[in-house]
Amino acid sequence: MIRVLLVHDTCLVRSALAEWLRREPDLGVFDTPWHTAPGRLRAVRPDVCAADLDCSDAYGIPPLGELSVREPDRSPPRLLVMASANRPGLLKRAVEAGALGYVDKEGAAPERLARGIRRVAEGKRFVDDSLGFGFLQAAEMPLTRRELSVLSLAAEGASIAEIAGSLCLSHGTVRNYMAAITRKTGARNRIDAIRISQGQGWL
Amino acid sequence: MIRVLLVHDTCLVRSALAEWLRREPDLGVFDTPWHTAPGRLRAVRPDVCAADLDCSDAYGIPPLGELSVREPDRSPPRLLVMASANRPGLLKRAVEAGALGYVDKEGAAPERLARGIRRVAEGKRFVDDSLGFGFLQAAEMPLTRRELSVLSLAAEGASIAEIAGSLCLSHGTVRNYMAAITRKTGARNRIDAIRISQGQGWL
Repeated sequence: MIRVLLVHDTCLVRSALAEWLRREPDLGVFDTPWHTAPGRLRAVRPDVCAADLDCSDAYGIPPLGELSVREPDRSPPRLLVMASANRPGLLKRAVEAGALGYVDKEGAAPERLARGIRRVAEGKRFVDDSLGFGFLQAAEMPLTRRELSVLSLAAEGASIAEIAGSLCLSHGTVRNYMAAITRKTGARNRIDAIRISQGQGWL
Repeated sequence: MIRVLLVHDTCLVRSALAEWLRREPDLGVFDTPWHTAPGRLRAVRPDVCAADLDCSDAYGIPPLGELSVREPDRSPPRLLVMASANRPGLLKRAVEAGALGYVDKEGAAPERLARGIRRVAEGKRFVDDSLGFGFLQAAEMPLTRRELSVLSLAAEGASIAEIAGSLCLSHGTVRNYMAAITRKTGARNRIDAIRISQGQGWL
């Protein structure tokens, strides 16, 4: 029996997917939204964590790190993510979090999710081909971590002065970062850079 | 038998929800993503169209108008939407499109979706209580249509000059609109106004 913790923020979707998976005789399925995932993880101790990369909190960035917390007497759960090729920033985060499985939710049927869970439970990789272009874009992420911090604050509505204050930079340096970000993302201006970066899941 | 057309852009979710609904003996279920919905609607001629308000195209605004096209020899399908209270802009659009049913996807189980479909098929309203605050906010939408057009163009990355050009306004008038929008949304600046408006589904 493979113990699975399904993480998804939309109740309607989570219930329907969990019910689908529960009909598979070899899967023991538990489910949770993102905000209670860490606690459920400790209680359920799943073999596989199957997590949707869309998260309704934290500006849409899922707290993947919280799913791979190590405990003394056991190995951490294997991670499978439900992803989209058009959000390369989220794919990159999943790679960094050590996910073994990548199911394309824009193209896959639930059967494919079940197959992915079984592969990942064996410690093997499972990657939908249709995510390929997304991975390519993820590898080509143009912004540095510092530039991303600047852009995240700008996207929250912070002014140049506020960004400078919170990152301990001069106003001129923040302006230089913003210019570099706009150029590197191929944007027309600051707002366009935020739009492009959010659309791709960098922010 | 109630003929239902389920409209949802995420394949994995659509398949799981459709399969769930197909187990109900009184529902005949068809499913489609948004971009092929108008054609499927003409082919399937459903009694109820159950549509998710998240749409992956068109900057996230679902083309609800295309679901209520009248044909000569029959009444248009009844519309039920799967919605969230925190996107009042989308709720408002659903109201304007004449939706009879409103299922809160953040809180509802699939049973509730099935119940809503049956109610709406009888021509009755079906509204999840938990969406109440969303409807209240929808009624308090602070921006005029003109202001929304200006803000939509700004959110796409257009400059003041480009916005002025496409809406046949002077630069000063566009600046005045932007100032009014920032004030009315309680935003700190233009980027903040876009963030707030997108978050609530106005844009």
